[in-house]
Amino acid sequence: MSDEIKVGGQGVKQQAPRLWTGDYYNEGVAAHNGLFDKLGEECGVFGVFGHAEAASLSYYGLHALQHRGQESAGICVAGSGEEFKYHRGMGLVKEVFNNDILGPMTGSTAIGHVRYSTSGESKLANAQPLVFKYREGDLAVATNGNLTNAPQIKKDLEKQGSIFQTTSDTEVVAHLIARSKHDDIVSAVKEALLKVEGAYAFLFMAQDKLIVARDPHGLRPFVAGRLGTAWLFASESCAFDAVGAQYYRDIEPGELLVLDMKTGRVTEDRFSPIKQRAVCAMEYIYFARPDSDIDAVNIHSARKRMGRQLAMESFVDADVVTGVPDSSISAAIGYAEQTGIPYELGLIKNRYTGRTFIQPSQELREQGVKMKLSAVRSIVAGKRVVIIDDSIVRGTTSLRIVNLLREAGAKEVHMRISSPPFANPCFYGIDTPSRTELIAAVKSIEEIRQAINADSLHFLSKEGLLTAIGHTTSDATRGYCTACFDNRYPTPVPDEAALGCGCD
Amino acid sequence: MSDEIKVGGQGVKQQAPRLWTGDYYNEGVAAHNGLFDKLGEECGVFGVFGHAEAASLSYYGLHALQHRGQESAGICVAGSGEEFKYHRGMGLVKEVFNNDILGPMTGSTAIGHVRYSTSGESKLANAQPLVFKYREGDLAVATNGNLTNAPQIKKDLEKQGSIFQTTSDTEVVAHLIARSKHDDIVSAVKEALLKVEGAYAFLFMAQDKLIVARDPHGLRPFVAGRLGTAWLFASESCAFDAVGAQYYRDIEPGELLVLDMKTGRVTEDRFSPIKQRAVCAMEYIYFARPDSDIDAVNIHSARKRMGRQLAMESFVDADVVTGVPDSSISAAIGYAEQTGIPYELGLIKNRYTGRTFIQPSQELREQGVKMKLSAVRSIVAGKRVVIIDDSIVRGTTSLRIVNLLREAGAKEVHMRISSPPFANPCFYGIDTPSRTELIAAVKSIEEIRQAINADSLHFLSKEGLLTAIGHTTSDATRGYCTACFDNRYPTPVPDEAALGCGCD
Amino acid sequence: MSDEIKVGGQGVKQQAPRLWTGDYYNEGVAAHNGLFDKLGEECGVFGVFGHAEAASLSYYGLHALQHRGQESAGICVAGSGEEFKYHRGMGLVKEVFNNDILGPMTGSTAIGHVRYSTSGESKLANAQPLVFKYREGDLAVATNGNLTNAPQIKKDLEKQGSIFQTTSDTEVVAHLIARSKHDDIVSAVKEALLKVEGAYAFLFMAQDKLIVARDPHGLRPFVAGRLGTAWLFASESCAFDAVGAQYYRDIEPGELLVLDMKTGRVTEDRFSPIKQRAVCAMEYIYFARPDSDIDAVNIHSARKRMGRQLAMESFVDADVVTGVPDSSISAAIGYAEQTGIPYELGLIKNRYTGRTFIQPSQELREQGVKMKLSAVRSIVAGKRVVIIDDSIVRGTTSLRIVNLLREAGAKEVHMRISSPPFANPCFYGIDTPSRTELIAAVKSIEEIRQAINADSLHFLSKEGLLTAIGHTTSDATRGYCTACFDNRYPTPVPDEAALGCGCD
Amino acid sequence: MSDEIKVGGQGVKQQAPRLWTGDYYNEGVAAHNGLFDKLGEECGVFGVFGHAEAASLSYYGLHALQHRGQESAGICVAGSGEEFKYHRGMGLVKEVFNNDILGPMTGSTAIGHVRYSTSGESKLANAQPLVFKYREGDLAVATNGNLTNAPQIKKDLEKQGSIFQTTSDTEVVAHLIARSKHDDIVSAVKEALLKVEGAYAFLFMAQDKLIVARDPHGLRPFVAGRLGTAWLFASESCAFDAVGAQYYRDIEPGELLVLDMKTGRVTEDRFSPIKQRAVCAMEYIYFARPDSDIDAVNIHSARKRMGRQLAMESFVDADVVTGVPDSSISAAIGYAEQTGIPYELGLIKNRYTGRTFIQPSQELREQGVKMKLSAVRSIVAGKRVVIIDDSIVRGTTSLRIVNLLREAGAKEVHMRISSPPFANPCFYGIDTPSRTELIAAVKSIEEIRQAINADSLHFLSKEGLLTAIGHTTSDATRGYCTACFDNRYPTPVPDEAALGCGCD
Repeated sequence: MSDEIKVGGQGVKQQAPRLWTGDYYNEGVAAHNGLFDKLGEECGVFGVFGHAEAASLSYYGLHALQHRGQESAGICVAGSGEEFKYHRGMGLVKEVFNNDILGPMTGSTAIGHVRYSTSGESKLANAQPLVFKYREGDLAVATNGNLTNAPQIKKDLEKQGSIFQTTSDTEVVAHLIARSKHDDIVSAVKEALLKVEGAYAFLFMAQDKLIVARDPHGLRPFVAGRLGTAWLFASESCAFDAVGAQYYRDIEPGELLVLDMKTGRVTEDRFSPIKQRAVCAMEYIYFARPDSDIDAVNIHSARKRMGRQLAMESFVDADVVTGVPDSSISAAIGYAEQTGIPYELGLIKNRYTGRTFIQPSQELREQGVKMKLSAVRSIVAGKRVVIIDDSIVRGTTSLRIVNLLREAGAKEVHMRISSPPFANPCFYGIDTPSRTELIAAVKSIEEIRQAINADSLHFLSKEGLLTAIGHTTSDATRGYCTACFDNRYPTPVPDEAALGCGCD
Repeated sequence: MSDEIKVGGQGVKQQAPRLWTGDYYNEGVAAHNGLFDKLGEECGVFGVFGHAEAASLSYYGLHALQHRGQESAGICVAGSGEEFKYHRGMGLVKEVFNNDILGPMTGSTAIGHVRYSTSGESKLANAQPLVFKYREGDLAVATNGNLTNAPQIKKDLEKQGSIFQTTSDTEVVAHLIARSKHDDIVSAVKEALLKVEGAYAFLFMAQDKLIVARDPHGLRPFVAGRLGTAWLFASESCAFDAVGAQYYRDIEPGELLVLDMKTGRVTEDRFSPIKQRAVCAMEYIYFARPDSDIDAVNIHSARKRMGRQLAMESFVDADVVTGVPDSSISAAIGYAEQTGIPYELGLIKNRYTGRTFIQPSQELREQGVKMKLSAVRSIVAGKRVVIIDDSIVRGTTSLRIVNLLREAGAKEVHMRISSPPFANPCFYGIDTPSRTELIAAVKSIEEIRQAINADSLHFLSKEGLLTAIGHTTSDATRGYCTACFDNRYPTPVPDEAALGCGCD
Repeated sequence: MSDEIKVGGQGVKQQAPRLWTGDYYNEGVAAHNGLFDKLGEECGVFGVFGHAEAASLSYYGLHALQHRGQESAGICVAGSGEEFKYHRGMGLVKEVFNNDILGPMTGSTAIGHVRYSTSGESKLANAQPLVFKYREGDLAVATNGNLTNAPQIKKDLEKQGSIFQTTSDTEVVAHLIARSKHDDIVSAVKEALLKVEGAYAFLFMAQDKLIVARDPHGLRPFVAGRLGTAWLFASESCAFDAVGAQYYRDIEPGELLVLDMKTGRVTEDRFSPIKQRAVCAMEYIYFARPDSDIDAVNIHSARKRMGRQLAMESFVDADVVTGVPDSSISAAIGYAEQTGIPYELGLIKNRYTGRTFIQPSQELREQGVKMKLSAVRSIVAGKRVVIIDDSIVRGTTSLRIVNLLREAGAKEVHMRISSPPFANPCFYGIDTPSRTELIAAVKSIEEIRQAINADSLHFLSKEGLLTAIGHTTSDATRGYCTACFDNRYPTPVPDEAALGCGCD
Repeated sequence: MSDEIKVGGQGVKQQAPRLWTGDYYNEGVAAHNGLFDKLGEECGVFGVFGHAEAASLSYYGLHALQHRGQESAGICVAGSGEEFKYHRGMGLVKEVFNNDILGPMTGSTAIGHVRYSTSGESKLANAQPLVFKYREGDLAVATNGNLTNAPQIKKDLEKQGSIFQTTSDTEVVAHLIARSKHDDIVSAVKEALLKVEGAYAFLFMAQDKLIVARDPHGLRPFVAGRLGTAWLFASESCAFDAVGAQYYRDIEPGELLVLDMKTGRVTEDRFSPIKQRAVCAMEYIYFARPDSDIDAVNIHSARKRMGRQLAMESFVDADVVTGVPDSSISAAIGYAEQTGIPYELGLIKNRYTGRTFIQPSQELREQGVKMKLSAVRSIVAGKRVVIIDDSIVRGTTSLRIVNLLREAGAKEVHMRISSPPFANPCFYGIDTPSRTELIAAVKSIEEIRQAINADSLHFLSKEGLLTAIGHTTSDATRGYCTACFDNRYPTPVPDEAALGCGCD
């Protein structure tokens, strides 16, 4: 998969992250077309507790999470009893913030957020953290995930006279907290979380408390780290490396941490009983940065193991192994290592990056300018090529890739996919097309092979995938959400027919 | 007065508008320091009903109102049944909008807003129009004014579980509407307006109605115009000239107009019984653009009459009349015409404009670089100078002006003020220092004269002022708010002691 | 004249400066269409000698001269023996420079330049100061003016193997200096100046000398000022007021000042014998800022006298006097003072300013949006209006203005022009249309009156103009270039037929 | 080597290109401090002949060459007999150009240039293509390389009265052409090239001819390609892939191609007799993009072979192989393939990209924020690590890398360098420190090992390097410049002592 899985509810294509860079975010994005911008889009959160430069740390941490969202960025900081200071803007972290903005954001607790890209600048209202006042004072909220029952709760709240200024699920939770019968913020948050269903990593910052919560199944990743005496929280551990901090542990599913700004005390609590762990497998396959660890598993290594496993399941004699940049490079190296077939640079991603990049004319486009991917003729001509990709969604990109390789002279093209067939929509924050648009939902593997014009096609088995992810652990209780492969959703999900539009 | 009266509740200095330009807004502004950003700041609103290019018209109209607010700008447009489209941003109208943004904002009804300047970019949340969803659908609100009882209402709403994402009074009104027992938007708006007190011009845009309302005393200006069959609404009539439209009439105090998008019908209604008209006199003296008419009185002409009247009340033999640019130029020409003393260009305003202008070093500042005002030596040297200003607030600027003229060689400096002594704070949208900082509240006129180092000093009498404003009309019912001169407020006002901070 | 006289050789319309602001430069400009970008365009120069913050002073000085050129800006500074530091860029002074750029530009001698607007960004190469190395080291040159024999000299130099990287006359002079037989820079500059003809104010900065020269007739203005012990040089004296400096004296026609950085000595010298002084009358009428003095005559006062003189020559009974903003406001006030007819604000200039301003659609344009000028109905309806403008070039703008006033209800419109008929092209730095496009060259005054639809039309007489300019002086040797009115050019001029294109 | 070799004569650090992306250019760069900006900096050129969208093609082609220069970009286009149209600016290709600029640049022949980064914006004058007029008309020149005898030629030209507006060698060549006795441009170019010495790829565009020339030793790479009937020329073949074009052949050392715009004819010619081929080996090791081919050798493959060869020369038993991103990744994969030790992602490059990225405070820096490289603890802890880098210049970066790995828990760190010791400065366009700053020039390998704190250290042998580069070819005449390794310069070079400054 290089560019087909959409993240969030708005039809925006997620760019494929690259292998070993922090610049996962420069691609142009397709236009926003959705109606309801669910909380569930793939976003990134970062929190700091007890560090004199909380806002600056958030800046660097969010930058490291930029691949999880490029539309908007925001930071809110709490000082000692003062009003919250915050800034949100459209664009990349480095575009939204400068010294003039960060300088006055003093305070030792902060939460930050990056949101995935849309073209609608008016959607600045949706940028997070959401900051508001209610009867108990200031509250700021940042989240990554998707609440599957948010539309219904919203309707109920409107009937009671609530107004909604954003289309984000986060605002729904804010109203639930403000209308809670509990004055105490921790109780109010717990009450609110028990009303919502779905996948999430939540950071709540109240006047004197930072509250951290992960959904009961652990669908979305969420890790804690330490920098000296300070606590950090992030969607991925790569954000800790970026600021010189150490990974501490993953937030447990259903766990709620309360960090008290007055006492400095950290309280470990739960808001939900223990449920079956179901960490999103697509984070390992595609979304997370290769240098992150999720539940103590390094992503690059996991992908390499997927490649090795794939080689064991579907060896093919060939001259060259190559990967679809960037997310499939690790798997391709694993495949090459396992088979002894040399890994080469057969496909190049042309990065015509940034919003201001001039689009080529129709004529130039036809002549080949700005094809996102190009094949390196001197590598593939006359060769039998194994091409590794991480997934196939609609199949259109795969067909393009195979044809590119053939046009560059490849003698044979063997497609190997480092995940099982993607046949079911996601309701937990990954924007996928409707079921009928998923090629694996409507075609057999042989039909897909024909559709993408490959000489052979193999997908990694679900068992192979789980083996590869879990390689370093013997934790019998470990579990993953593989609903997109096996249709077994860990929570109730909305009625697809009722959703109407294809986007979810 | 050149730069002392602050507008709004946040300690931001209002730049003096210039005489005959639309560029009243380029000055740097002092930093935002207030706690509660009242609805009452001096802002500008513009509305369109029934024009195919409603958003574009709003763009040009708001540009003409730019002198009323430079911090942020926003436009919201309603099409036929679709969701509202809106965009808000920090900065000038021309900076916030471009073709890519305006292009998709199709629809024939629009409301727009310009907000006065602060330095806090995080305050983008306060930009208007406020756009939200409630149980009846979309609602957008734009306002100019100040609600004197907003803090109390807000406290009550928070107790009921409301959350506030802005510090604007407008959000208070939004909650009142959403919690109204009336499903019908017109009834809900009326109910909400009856609960609030203060000065305002309101534009409400619901799914199928545009609602226009002016406070019961008419404290803030509000005019209706026509462009072909379309209706326009604006804080000042200059916005109509800018788009080639015709002034139709002023919105009446306490009046409520309902324009129905489905039927095109315009209903004239009231939400409040008739009260004593009390149009803000400072709009005539200082705030409005010289080419605007308020209640059918042209501002430039009114200011010239103030100058003539001032000449009659306080003639002094002199060689040259000059005015403090820009708002006092009209009065100075009037003074010169009345006395026969030639009007000359004795003071120049150096416009080091825009946010990016480099500030001079301390040394250059001491040598005279970037004094906002400079005296033209070839005009004033050896001369007896009459200098006209529109008001004195703290007195510091007046002292600087007199000294500038003396350093440039003026033999005598006679200060003439085209308004009465400003001795009482405003609660209706003009940001003034606290009473104790108003020089006219604590010093006699002779003491002021000494403090500003003038050879003589005279203020226009209140009667002279009213005569000058009312020159063209015999309307006995006409009334003005002159509370800042005579301490007679047309509505209940907050307890000054309770306000604590000096800003109001 | 509000927008018809073009400045420079490239068909770019000069915006009319406003009365009392420093913001003369925000207008959009028509496209560049010329072939040869003569040195002679209306530009502004500023020089500093002996001030620790020479670059910063230049920044503020050039900003004050911004009305003389908005296309590009540049500053070059010389330190003690080091290489020159310089920066040039497209756009306004405040856009081209920031603290990061100005900060490192240390040195006590500097020259700066603003160049009039074209749309061709590639013309950055033409930005001044021109900075180059030749056998004696660094040399920087800034100029305002036009060399009438530059094309011929350039052709000769190319034959000798010179290459030209700009289309500016300045580069011609640079080559003349580099190819001079004199090693001594002062002698080389004198030799070069004796070879060129035309109108100019030159600033040359060599490794250890600043050289200042004005053309033998004094066609272009050039003044010296003092700031403490430092010397300043500028196209107009308003730049001195802006930095707190004092006007010292005008540079004499044919004069050459040499300021030695090592000794600090200032040597007064000449490069040309004394010729008939011929200061450009249009500077007084239209180009210079109202707060500048040229040859000790204040521009605003001169324009007021033109208005008074015009009133004496062409009184008409009327109700209102108004001026075409901005350059005609002073004359209009003078006319009003002389006649006793009240001066009112009948015409407003709508400043849709800046490059990014969105242009209205054709439909909005037809409805009246963004007419540059609009008439204030409440002022002119039913009135007999005297409208003062400073000149008529093609006549198209005048017709528009008269029609605007009539559409706003003016009963009679009497056009009065504060200069004689403009009937001959300029070769000295003012970009004018070809002779056949000048309405005064091809029509009688009565024909012009009919063409512009006025009830009456009068031009100021040449004698009246000279009286008005010279009002404060009895200097019998004073002389002005009035070639555009009387076809008497003070120097040989190019053959108009040979110029081909209409621009000159 | 990650950041030590400087390119060009100005002490600017070249960022290390990444493995397989087109975004090689986002890094901040150290400040410009050199005196003479030699033609020789590592730049990129791109030329188009005979394509209707020549300017747009250049835009995409230059973007693909962005890793060769990030300071400035420029394109010049020739139409049918009209004046050249060009635009140059500071910054990246995508920042310098937009549709408004490219749109009017019509014409079917174009040359473009990217120049490496400095911080001195005033150096816009040095941006290429250099465009000038001489007696035969327009001429534009773009080059990559360094002329070793340019300073002497320049001095001679100045004595003859030439002026220099840039500090680029290119202007020297322009003068030589303008002063040639030949009117014919081809002869004039040949005459000029015979006078200069050094390394270069030249594109000359005259009114009706495009001339292409590579230095007699072929030091700098230069390739020709075809896109339909059009001819393309580029510093690297990756630019052809980016526009869908095909590599045709390398320009031969000493070759001169003349492409006639009138006839469309391409003439193959020479300006120099055949000399020993000496292609820069560092292009293979470090500079070129991995997907480029130079002299038919793919860069990524060559680097992998270097890694394999290095493994054969210096095997060490270890647990993990990792590479210094980005330029050493290919070699690391090769090393891993040869040894069977798994390749893992042990070092991550944190890309705090772009000029506006906020620098961390000293305190954050000490805590680890914004270390350019970070080690991935979960990969290296407790492991014996082989770390592959492409070169060691001063040794400081290598020490940092080894220490990073040790702090992350590596048990052993074995440094392997995929090139021989870099012990001699480059005079052909790569900016290196002076000889005394090169660690390999002053220390033995064992001393270097100690200095960088590695457990073992090996450099690839020169023979191994040449074998690796030449792997796919049997061309006995192939030769490489390895002067930086063996002090054998293919041309006369300047006296190092005379250069004084350490930069070359």
